[in-house]
Amino acid sequence: VTPKRLVVIGGVAGGMSAAAKAKRQNPALLVTVFERGAYISYGACGLPYAVSGVVPELDSLIARTPAAMRERGVDVRVHHEVTEVDHDGRYVRGRNLETGEAFCAPYDALVLATGTLPVCPQVPGTALPGVHVMRRLEDAAALREAIASGAKRAVVIGGGYIGLETVEAFVTAGLSVRVLERQPGLLLPFGPKPSALALEEVAARAEVMLGTELLGFEGRGRLEGVATSAGTFPAEVALVAVGVRPNNALAKALGLRLGPAEAVLTDAQLRTDRDGVFAVGDLTAAHHRVTQKPAWLPLGDTANRQGRVAGTVIGGGDARFRGVVGTAITKVFERALATTGLTRAEAQRHGFDAQETHIVTTDRARYYPGHRPLHVTLVWERPSGRLLGGQLVGYGNAVKRVDVLAALLFSGGTLQDLADLDFAYAPPFSNVWDPLAVAANVALG
Amino acid sequence: VTPKRLVVIGGVAGGMSAAAKAKRQNPALLVTVFERGAYISYGACGLPYAVSGVVPELDSLIARTPAAMRERGVDVRVHHEVTEVDHDGRYVRGRNLETGEAFCAPYDALVLATGTLPVCPQVPGTALPGVHVMRRLEDAAALREAIASGAKRAVVIGGGYIGLETVEAFVTAGLSVRVLERQPGLLLPFGPKPSALALEEVAARAEVMLGTELLGFEGRGRLEGVATSAGTFPAEVALVAVGVRPNNALAKALGLRLGPAEAVLTDAQLRTDRDGVFAVGDLTAAHHRVTQKPAWLPLGDTANRQGRVAGTVIGGGDARFRGVVGTAITKVFERALATTGLTRAEAQRHGFDAQETHIVTTDRARYYPGHRPLHVTLVWERPSGRLLGGQLVGYGNAVKRVDVLAALLFSGGTLQDLADLDFAYAPPFSNVWDPLAVAANVALG
Repeated sequence: VTPKRLVVIGGVAGGMSAAAKAKRQNPALLVTVFERGAYISYGACGLPYAVSGVVPELDSLIARTPAAMRERGVDVRVHHEVTEVDHDGRYVRGRNLETGEAFCAPYDALVLATGTLPVCPQVPGTALPGVHVMRRLEDAAALREAIASGAKRAVVIGGGYIGLETVEAFVTAGLSVRVLERQPGLLLPFGPKPSALALEEVAARAEVMLGTELLGFEGRGRLEGVATSAGTFPAEVALVAVGVRPNNALAKALGLRLGPAEAVLTDAQLRTDRDGVFAVGDLTAAHHRVTQKPAWLPLGDTANRQGRVAGTVIGGGDARFRGVVGTAITKVFERALATTGLTRAEAQRHGFDAQETHIVTTDRARYYPGHRPLHVTLVWERPSGRLLGGQLVGYGNAVKRVDVLAALLFSGGTLQDLADLDFAYAPPFSNVWDPLAVAANVALG
Repeated sequence: VTPKRLVVIGGVAGGMSAAAKAKRQNPALLVTVFERGAYISYGACGLPYAVSGVVPELDSLIARTPAAMRERGVDVRVHHEVTEVDHDGRYVRGRNLETGEAFCAPYDALVLATGTLPVCPQVPGTALPGVHVMRRLEDAAALREAIASGAKRAVVIGGGYIGLETVEAFVTAGLSVRVLERQPGLLLPFGPKPSALALEEVAARAEVMLGTELLGFEGRGRLEGVATSAGTFPAEVALVAVGVRPNNALAKALGLRLGPAEAVLTDAQLRTDRDGVFAVGDLTAAHHRVTQKPAWLPLGDTANRQGRVAGTVIGGGDARFRGVVGTAITKVFERALATTGLTRAEAQRHGFDAQETHIVTTDRARYYPGHRPLHVTLVWERPSGRLLGGQLVGYGNAVKRVDVLAALLFSGGTLQDLADLDFAYAPPFSNVWDPLAVAANVALG
């Protein structure tokens, strides 16, 4: 039976995609989206660039407003927090965070798209004014405000990609920046070589403190310093980016089956194990096509793809989410880093007989002006030659080549497939042997 | 039986790759390369950039010198033209173009890598000084010389990619340029939309004369004007780029089986139908993985891949050339154009029920500075949804995404495969839906 009423909890990436697609698929469907924050459908990955001022207008990150969605027939309620799902009664309950009023809404189909919550460090002072996270549009607005008000010294806690994008944002905005990472390297999920190159890039512009523990935030009434295992450092602003976890309170209350990191498990149509309840986006674990296991890799583009599939299915159409291969890309000052599939260490953890091949070449013909180094790491299985992953470090769009690896990982391709590909070549764009083919040929020996 | 003596005719891309790889594969092999020109192993695709001065040193296009190859055990003879192959006697004969001396050389295995010859227009005056082609390093040197000597007005005959790259080179070098094309558009093999965008780009900087016939070159002792169906135009330099054809005289003399455009047909190991005779590079037709027929698409990167396979096989190893999908890329002033597979018109000619979907979006997030338009055309088969080709027009490396399409074409992928891909996303590199996925979703409807 096709549902008549759809309720979506969460209106940023996956939730709004599901709502919009379901409405397009079945215009008779009554679609309501409840979003706890003040904004829907914004480019969360653009927040650091709005903090730095590279993106001058914060509002430009907003792809769709509630009014625009209403025009399309999707009822969007911002500042509406859903606090309870009564699945036997098929309704949700919650509160309007502006007015304090309670609301409830019945549904036939429910989409959970509650995303993530930032991990809160277990130290004193995390609630001091001046201690921020980078998650919602409101967080970026607060950071812009802090910078406009004269903050000069910043400490970023966490050397993952959100941490480093924020380091870049602060440096670009003219702040003096320290970055704290408890691990011995930055961006470690990208693998050892990208990690080392990212460190080189960041250390030239900020104080990098590896293997350093956060002890707390200090200040009278507002942040004045950050206490660490290496001493206390004065700061007017701190950014906590020590990771996120699935915002799974409602999912747990519903008793949904959870997977890695307590992310919600779904089938390929984004159905949970409770009839009529779907889950999409950062809340969910996705099928990883390399390991063939569920993996929790919260990313906005995955959320959008999942939302589209869930919306199609709820609207009465047919679609399948075919999984992820773990593709990610980030800019660290001038350098660009991309990864897909597994690093060698990850592959070994998953039981693969994994080899790694690393090359460094140029991103266009060596004689062509403006060529820059491009590092390619390929991770592959022995003896099959099956590709398991790859990492690129270079400049600008040169690392977007990672999508070619992603395409091969998606279909179970091999080193030989990569070496044999008919790549586009002209001196302004590549070498006569594309860097990916060079790496494949080196790996093939 | 493994050959003991290898002779390679032609030492630029495919020939030199074959020679170098065969020697690495079997160090006992005696390898001799005969090259008619003065140089081997140079980046022919870089010639226009050496003419403009974007690449300041012509020599920087040279990847390997005869001396360097000799150090690797490959005997390279430049200025050596092979004029006859006696396959019954298993030797080649020729002349040293510098000394006039004759030479001969026996072989067990022979690689023909004689490349292409420029098509010569059937008009008067083609041999006048000042009338050039862009094919060898020597040609670029002559054009540099002409510009240095004060040439101010140039006419380029031919609106293909070599013609247009040369238009850009001349304009960059400060010349006033006219480009003549007998067809009603530029770069027509890239499809109608890319053709129109290329025209826009070129017409802003040079006089474009479409549907115009070349009548001849005029001048007393050297070029003074180019006569066309639209009048005669004064010029000190002209570039003829009306196409190339396989340089197949030796192949014909050997009676080799020829395919489209009289290019040599080979098997997947680059063997011709005469035992011990291989052919690689621009001389050959390659298996086209989309049409499943031989196609003549002379490109340097294909030549290198073929040379590598032939070298491996001749050296006693195992390798297969798995064909091409027709990937090409070119820069036209600020714009970049890329194509892979078939255009819709080509697909229809090959009997496919071909559809075309065209979108224009941005190459990075709309709110991120520096985003530029990116046009994507997908050609696909109805009702299967199989991808048949794609064309991109944009700026810089954004069009290198064509390699993702090439990867899918290589493996017979569909629109759904493209829509489902796990693309890399961050605002400086892409939109949350990669432009290729947007196009696929539009095509899927």
